[in-house]
Amino acid sequence: MLESLFTPQTVAVIGASRTPGKVGYEIVANLVNGGFRGQIVPVNPAAAEIVVQPSGQRAAETPGAQPVRLKCCKDLPSYGAKIDLSVIAVPSKAVKAAVADSINAGAQTVVVITAGFKETGPEGAEAETELAALCAGRGVRLMGPNCLGVINTHHHLNASFAKRMPGRGGIAVISQSGALAAAILDWAAGRQLGLASLLSIGNKADLNETDFLRALADDKHTNVIACYLENITSGDEFVKVAEQVATVKPVLVLKVGTTQAGAKAASSHTGSLAGADIAYGAAFKRAGVVRAETFEALFDYASALAMQPLPKGNNVAIVTNAGGPGIMAADAVEDTGMKVAALTPRIAEVLKTKLPAAASVGNPIDVLGDADAARYALALDAAQDDPAVDTIIVILTPQAMTYPVETAQALAKCARGEKPILVTFMGGVDVEPGRRELARANLPDYPSPERAVAALKAMCDYAAWRRRPPRIVARFPVNRRRAERIIARHLRAGIYQVGEVKAKEILRAYDFDVPAGQLASSADQAVEIAQLVGFPVAMKISSPDILHKSDVGGVKLNLSNAEQVRDAYELMMLRIGRRAPEARLDGAYVERMCARGREIILGMTRDPQFGPMLMFGLGGIFVEVMKDVAFYLAPITAEEAMQMLMGTKSYALLKGARGQTGVDLNAIAGGLQRISQLVTDFPQIAEMDINPFIVGEAGQSSVAADARITLAKGSHS
Amino acid sequence: MLESLFTPQTVAVIGASRTPGKVGYEIVANLVNGGFRGQIVPVNPAAAEIVVQPSGQRAAETPGAQPVRLKCCKDLPSYGAKIDLSVIAVPSKAVKAAVADSINAGAQTVVVITAGFKETGPEGAEAETELAALCAGRGVRLMGPNCLGVINTHHHLNASFAKRMPGRGGIAVISQSGALAAAILDWAAGRQLGLASLLSIGNKADLNETDFLRALADDKHTNVIACYLENITSGDEFVKVAEQVATVKPVLVLKVGTTQAGAKAASSHTGSLAGADIAYGAAFKRAGVVRAETFEALFDYASALAMQPLPKGNNVAIVTNAGGPGIMAADAVEDTGMKVAALTPRIAEVLKTKLPAAASVGNPIDVLGDADAARYALALDAAQDDPAVDTIIVILTPQAMTYPVETAQALAKCARGEKPILVTFMGGVDVEPGRRELARANLPDYPSPERAVAALKAMCDYAAWRRRPPRIVARFPVNRRRAERIIARHLRAGIYQVGEVKAKEILRAYDFDVPAGQLASSADQAVEIAQLVGFPVAMKISSPDILHKSDVGGVKLNLSNAEQVRDAYELMMLRIGRRAPEARLDGAYVERMCARGREIILGMTRDPQFGPMLMFGLGGIFVEVMKDVAFYLAPITAEEAMQMLMGTKSYALLKGARGQTGVDLNAIAGGLQRISQLVTDFPQIAEMDINPFIVGEAGQSSVAADARITLAKGSHS
Repeated sequence: MLESLFTPQTVAVIGASRTPGKVGYEIVANLVNGGFRGQIVPVNPAAAEIVVQPSGQRAAETPGAQPVRLKCCKDLPSYGAKIDLSVIAVPSKAVKAAVADSINAGAQTVVVITAGFKETGPEGAEAETELAALCAGRGVRLMGPNCLGVINTHHHLNASFAKRMPGRGGIAVISQSGALAAAILDWAAGRQLGLASLLSIGNKADLNETDFLRALADDKHTNVIACYLENITSGDEFVKVAEQVATVKPVLVLKVGTTQAGAKAASSHTGSLAGADIAYGAAFKRAGVVRAETFEALFDYASALAMQPLPKGNNVAIVTNAGGPGIMAADAVEDTGMKVAALTPRIAEVLKTKLPAAASVGNPIDVLGDADAARYALALDAAQDDPAVDTIIVILTPQAMTYPVETAQALAKCARGEKPILVTFMGGVDVEPGRRELARANLPDYPSPERAVAALKAMCDYAAWRRRPPRIVARFPVNRRRAERIIARHLRAGIYQVGEVKAKEILRAYDFDVPAGQLASSADQAVEIAQLVGFPVAMKISSPDILHKSDVGGVKLNLSNAEQVRDAYELMMLRIGRRAPEARLDGAYVERMCARGREIILGMTRDPQFGPMLMFGLGGIFVEVMKDVAFYLAPITAEEAMQMLMGTKSYALLKGARGQTGVDLNAIAGGLQRISQLVTDFPQIAEMDINPFIVGEAGQSSVAADARITLAKGSHS
Repeated sequence: MLESLFTPQTVAVIGASRTPGKVGYEIVANLVNGGFRGQIVPVNPAAAEIVVQPSGQRAAETPGAQPVRLKCCKDLPSYGAKIDLSVIAVPSKAVKAAVADSINAGAQTVVVITAGFKETGPEGAEAETELAALCAGRGVRLMGPNCLGVINTHHHLNASFAKRMPGRGGIAVISQSGALAAAILDWAAGRQLGLASLLSIGNKADLNETDFLRALADDKHTNVIACYLENITSGDEFVKVAEQVATVKPVLVLKVGTTQAGAKAASSHTGSLAGADIAYGAAFKRAGVVRAETFEALFDYASALAMQPLPKGNNVAIVTNAGGPGIMAADAVEDTGMKVAALTPRIAEVLKTKLPAAASVGNPIDVLGDADAARYALALDAAQDDPAVDTIIVILTPQAMTYPVETAQALAKCARGEKPILVTFMGGVDVEPGRRELARANLPDYPSPERAVAALKAMCDYAAWRRRPPRIVARFPVNRRRAERIIARHLRAGIYQVGEVKAKEILRAYDFDVPAGQLASSADQAVEIAQLVGFPVAMKISSPDILHKSDVGGVKLNLSNAEQVRDAYELMMLRIGRRAPEARLDGAYVERMCARGREIILGMTRDPQFGPMLMFGLGGIFVEVMKDVAFYLAPITAEEAMQMLMGTKSYALLKGARGQTGVDLNAIAGGLQRISQLVTDFPQIAEMDINPFIVGEAGQSSVAADARITLAKGSHS
């Protein structure tokens, strides 16, 4: 896919310039100096030829390289032959014509570098839409506008105005910010980090992150995809594609613009608890996307994943020539929830005989301050031999007898590629040559133990996701027709708030236990129903106009005989008649009181980007004050529902803390799965809460004690 | 203080060697090449002279510098004149004699580089104690053993075997790890970061972190003290001294070895909730110590504090030439609880007229991708002018028209030293020369926006601590004698567990409200007491042998008349006679039932290092499951007690969340202050809990419903 973009044979540059420093010159120069082996077609109505001075890689690798002279075309039609890729850097007003010319010349992909479109306002947005339509109409893909361009190191292609061409490597970078892409290239040059490709996606008029994920999935040179994103164009599709790609190779995302929404998580209501950032988090978790919280983390993680094999578990061995940094690493390992491995006694014995007497053969393995390269190799060998060790962190501090270069070489020689090895050469000037050796040998190196451990943790989490069991979403036998009828009736009547009575009917249709109950329209009927369902009962006013029933005296609990029911009914009608004289009354809902148990909130809110998002939390203050809630995208599997529970602090309580019996965890997980099925069956449901869902001990029944469903305005039955 | 160590005139090196690479050579060479201006006295029985080759700074600054020939002494007595400082690098068996020689030669401080002492086992520990005693007996201070030595750049003193001599700067480094000290020096060299001094404190046989803090407080060259510590020798003294020093200049600590203890925080018991790391945290908070969680953070924070003025508030302006990194910075600012400043309209207007039309004059101030140095200066000027801005972050990404060096120079020229300015030059090779300019101009520079923001947050927190009101610990009028008598009686009887009845008497003496109640030894008496205190009452068995009263049927609540009291008493005695026939019974405690309210836990545990540590948390699962607790060192002020409350998530609930009335916060703060006074008055109290402390709404009473005090074994009345 997108061959014309990744591996073009003929590249036109419309707006090519003779003046170094101008974007139109830099693109041509980058193509030449990046070593592009195909045809370059500079287009400039005023220039006969462009002279490209050797620079960058070409200047460095070929001392004495000569300037390259390229003949210019007056316009693209005059070129007369077919092109694959067109890179456009003309003023914004001339872009449309350039795109049309490109399409006519056979370009399969057009990269619009020029800015001044959507980002400038409505007029620019319109022009941008026109460009997209022009391309779509002819089956041509559009990258940008307002982007830095494209680099594919494995095709020697630098069709960008970036100042640097990275070396070849396994990391593909997708960046929504051109400036950040430039910073990444500069930073990668400093770290000698190779890249597979760099895709500056700009305004995303056509091609977006999801298209590139899909294209990179099959690219054999790409083993990690690192994305910087400010938004996601199509959430639903992104999740689907990212999940497929992540099954094959790691997808990392740094998503910025997270806070404003996150700060709104303030009430117990599912919808307002789930800010946009939470939706992104849920989406990434589902898709197996490795989320980086900071710019440094993005490349820390990407380097580890690109250079080293995935770990089989989370038992970490630490090899160090200094105690302090070893402690730092151990602290960090424990903090992240990984384990400082207990070395196998046999291995520890071997180490003991081979290392100096003062060395510590515990973990961290302290090879002592005077450790030479051979001693490091010995310890690394032992850690690789040890079946109790899954991953290895090697730390070096520059001491009197330390040889960073030799040590790096020894580590490289000794590394077997079976267990991930992450290295920390602490310091600056003295260790720098060693760092370069590590980079050459594909051993990821970090400036501090904490950052190495964070990268390891990201690897372990991703590896665990890769090992996950196949996702099987259970389908429960339900009475879908019945729910459908209730929803349809509401929508036809233009009622979007489904009240407790009908919401419970829907839940019952989806096999939730709901307290037995019926709607009464007279005191006599209320008594009859109470006798039918059995005492004690609860009575709640039923009216489409009353949202907060308790506030108007519309709730009575624990009514234990006929007299109390009759009294309650009459009093309720009297009071509501006074307090809410305008309210339409359906009557009073009489239901059997729920058994006691732990109060849970189960809910769903439909994210505009990622669709239905399930929510779980312990009732009351746990959600309101502690914000101890978990979210997950629907549809959900049984394992994922259980993981939601385990993702909260409340889990300890549910499981049974301090001698108390736990509750029926499967009942909660099952409830989440049923909600998942319901909201997947009915996209008309915009939001719902079961609050409280009362869960008993295992074996006892769990009931939906109150419920609320909101339908989407404008949705159809 | 410690002049002989920081600014000696004559330095002896015992164990000086002619062989480069040997520690005894490197120390002499470092003294020479570091430019030491006093007298160097190499001591070596076998060498007549030592030839020091120019290296490091001297080689760099004086091309063609000649080797320096130093005459050696056979031994120190043969030198015949007084020395100030002696640096010892002889084999461990010879150290004691060398120390004795040094003292005899007049050394006021002895630095023992040699390893092989406490860290090797009991024998080494004994030798180390002997060294310390030898020095102490003669009034001489001892640094080490097992250390890298001492560097004081402002005195041109490098009495260490470190490979590098840093440039002059304002940061003093105290490191408990020699290897880490070496890594720091190497790293500082790479970052062109100057240091004031480097103190490798080794095994701390005599001089420890607290001594150095004290000495550095008055050092005019030191404006920030950065410590790497694995433990603290004397917690109590450290807190006192650190608090004094932090009032004058920032003290930063990276404390490692945090996790094993932290993981133990598992039960509701104050003692077990407060792991060692929590005690360190509480101590640092009290002392105003800036805690760094990682190695990188330590120097990120130190650079900012050393180079820039303290902020007056937490309103941040962000100046950037790229949107993405601006968003990253804004996210980070909001995440840490600081504010993205709203620019003053007048300033925004000025910016609008001066910046290009496409520039954003919101905050972040986007000066656009083609911003030159002048445009950066303009934006920085505006941000400095704006009274709504307290601190400024400047971000640069290397784009086509970016001039890192010129921009750095312009920023340096424009910076007024009034508001802290932190800079992020993102990238690597291209921005590196600009970074060097920034370092020269004392503008701290960070590789990512997030790290700049984290450093800013540390500055803001420290500045807020510096602005704190004077600490006034209130003394409440209490009946100290009464508490004293109860404690003394327990200690004399060898009873260390003070039960509910007596614990409540102590609390009453410290003016806590305790439910009215008395001990009954018959049913009749129980009824009498109940009538006296008023119904309803609670009854609890009182026995030194019964810890868990409920488990044996020893608690009855809500007894509302004489008959119920009589029945309860007789039933309780019957059951306990059966279930715990061996238990000594004092009778049953009858007390008035507490009013309803929010259940709180107040407690104290005495940390072996830092003394009494107060604890606050919401009762039950909030502490047990949510670990939502706060700790603070006693004695505590009213403000600090209130800060403890505000440091928990439960605070929202206490204050009154979602329409519910809040509770009497002053009652909780007052309770903490009273416990503080009690445990400060009585060091015999090892641990205590008031669980629950029942707090009503403001104006209502709050009572200690149950209490438990543990006395320290071996403490005396």
